Amino acid sequence: MATAPEQDLPYDVFSRACPSRATLEHVTGRWGSLTLGALYEGSLRFNELRRRVDGVSEKMLSQTLHALERDGLVHREAQPTNPPRVDYELTPLGREVAERLLALIRSVEGRMDDVLAARRRYDEARPEESPSP
Amino acid sequence: MATAPEQDLPYDVFSRACPSRATLEHVTGRWGSLTLGALYEGSLRFNELRRRVDGVSEKMLSQTLHALERDGLVHREAQPTNPPRVDYELTPLGREVAERLLALIRSVEGRMDDVLAARRRYDEARPEESPSP
Repeated sequence: MATAPEQDLPYDVFSRACPSRATLEHVTGRWGSLTLGALYEGSLRFNELRRRVDGVSEKMLSQTLHALERDGLVHREAQPTNPPRVDYELTPLGREVAERLLALIRSVEGRMDDVLAARRRYDEARPEESPSP
Repeated sequence: MATAPEQDLPYDVFSRACPSRATLEHVTGRWGSLTLGALYEGSLRFNELRRRVDGVSEKMLSQTLHALERDGLVHREAQPTNPPRVDYELTPLGREVAERLLALIRSVEGRMDDVLAARRRYDEARPEESPSP
């Protein structure tokens, strides 16, 4: 049984039973993070999102959007057009979370030269191991 | 082929070939994020980390630490004691990234009342579906 030092806080991602852990995973998951990042630039239709989030399958993007919509981070708007058209956009809550996420993404992108240099040093010191990608 | 609007940036997580995407996943992965968050409070030994990151297996924590060490975010220090003892701590780069990550975690934890209310609304409007957790 882990005893977290912040037991006075109502939610704690370090506790496996806390629902905030699942939401953090929706936000930071491979496709969740890229979806929130893409929608931060403005509302997008499903196929626009699919192109922006390079490599996502239709099924995974659909699941990702459902989880984010259920958590109140993404709003799905079916336009009354013919053919019907569905737009996705961030809710105010989604915008707030996406801002923090984008600060993290930009931090990682901005320090990739250092990360790649660290990887080279690590691999040179351990030529016998086959590291994960 | 996705054409990202920020092609002048050297690294872009939206591009599936960019190495920053793997690093973002190490940072935001289920165990990577909690490991970085735990180490932000100070250096920890393996078993201390395992208790703090509630629910992680020995194997997953070991893999997580290797990936973070290889990316230059975590430093592993073997103490010359008997029995030998290994401490893990954030590098300056790891601290920088962990700060952004913790801002995101606190944002999610701080808005969980809204997230749970959104989930209730979503599930009440779609009683026939069985949503993902």
